[in-house]
Amino acid sequence: MGKLSVVGIGPGNYDNMTVRADRALRECQVIVGYSVYVDLVKDRYPGKEYRTTGMTREADRCRMALDLAREGKEVAMVCSGDSGIYGMAALIYELRGEAEDPEVEVIPGLTAACSGSALLGAPLTHDFAVVSLSDRLTPWEKIAARLRAAAEADLSLVIYNPASHGRPDHLRRAADILLETLPADRPCGIARMIGREGETGTVLTLGQLRDAAVDMFCTVFIGNAATRVVGGRLVTPRGYRDV
Amino acid sequence: MGKLSVVGIGPGNYDNMTVRADRALRECQVIVGYSVYVDLVKDRYPGKEYRTTGMTREADRCRMALDLAREGKEVAMVCSGDSGIYGMAALIYELRGEAEDPEVEVIPGLTAACSGSALLGAPLTHDFAVVSLSDRLTPWEKIAARLRAAAEADLSLVIYNPASHGRPDHLRRAADILLETLPADRPCGIARMIGREGETGTVLTLGQLRDAAVDMFCTVFIGNAATRVVGGRLVTPRGYRDV
Repeated sequence: MGKLSVVGIGPGNYDNMTVRADRALRECQVIVGYSVYVDLVKDRYPGKEYRTTGMTREADRCRMALDLAREGKEVAMVCSGDSGIYGMAALIYELRGEAEDPEVEVIPGLTAACSGSALLGAPLTHDFAVVSLSDRLTPWEKIAARLRAAAEADLSLVIYNPASHGRPDHLRRAADILLETLPADRPCGIARMIGREGETGTVLTLGQLRDAAVDMFCTVFIGNAATRVVGGRLVTPRGYRDV
Repeated sequence: MGKLSVVGIGPGNYDNMTVRADRALRECQVIVGYSVYVDLVKDRYPGKEYRTTGMTREADRCRMALDLAREGKEVAMVCSGDSGIYGMAALIYELRGEAEDPEVEVIPGLTAACSGSALLGAPLTHDFAVVSLSDRLTPWEKIAARLRAAAEADLSLVIYNPASHGRPDHLRRAADILLETLPADRPCGIARMIGREGETGTVLTLGQLRDAAVDMFCTVFIGNAATRVVGGRLVTPRGYRDV
């Protein structure tokens, strides 16, 4: 009887994988995924059957993984970051529906909110929101409303997918929305290529963020009203000093 | 020269630790932490010096860890879940201030938003907010405003610290706030004792959540407008079917 593990591999390096994710990739027969993510793990797990698809072929990729598991294979589908947060687990469950075959296991991984925070300092010590700027599947008006709500409620913000080739100005548009409520000197950060060759963490202000160059390898952090820069790090206190 | 690693150990079991967190605990000399978290790792890392403090002694614990590292020790401070998200990393940076000694490394870990999601299904496939119901350090009015903002912006919600001995009715109060905006049949979930002996995942409605028994070992998930129950799992679609 086959099985499908949906595996969050974290930001991309072995060190940031969990023990459980590593074991799932060592023990499976087939590794399925978007080619860019498969390339991150391929050298470490030799002797596997690899099946890759292009970037926007999510449903095809999930059907392929489910079919292979139904045929009796031990299949691992790799997702960058977490397997659930903006990952493939939901689509796997939707496509399987009410059937019990194949067995599905979702293995969590470090999402960029965790790994990017650690790179920049500690910006998420208190309540926060995570919002993607990709409007491929979500109307921009809904994204804008979520950014406004987070700013007005003094939530720290993590922005996923701040830019892509098709929408180079989304971060600028998002910053302009946030600047309606938040001051231009609000501490922010950009984590790029987390855990990979060329990793960088940049601390800057919301005013500077508006004009910052970002790409699809960036995750953006916006502090709350208490966030400060301490020793070059982006730090949101929780208030333990008062205890 | 000593060093302080602030280590997110994830939900508590070895399987959900990262390779990097495991290595930091294997290689350090002293492990510092709240006694409940230290007990989770103690058996696996024998021969270490252990220093523990009680639950609300966060600042004392951080000062102790910094002092030990300044004395030249290799120190690991353990945090449950992530080291940054509601963790100790910010307080370590604040207490160190602008000094460069000791060297500090923040090692991220799986926060309950990731590990609890995987247990329940895939509730966080799209934008979400994380809010703690602890009013030990945050006024309740601010917590209430954040819950309202998340509900009105159709963000999925993850609720940390839904209850404690001193505030048994906080989840009921939070549910009543959410029910001003959201329907009583909105799919929700409770993840309890994630990754530990007696782990449970419960899927229920927001109306039922209002009267659910929760404790400090629970993390609560509230779906967005698209969240459904599929095969007994809490699933928020991202919309890949339309691609």
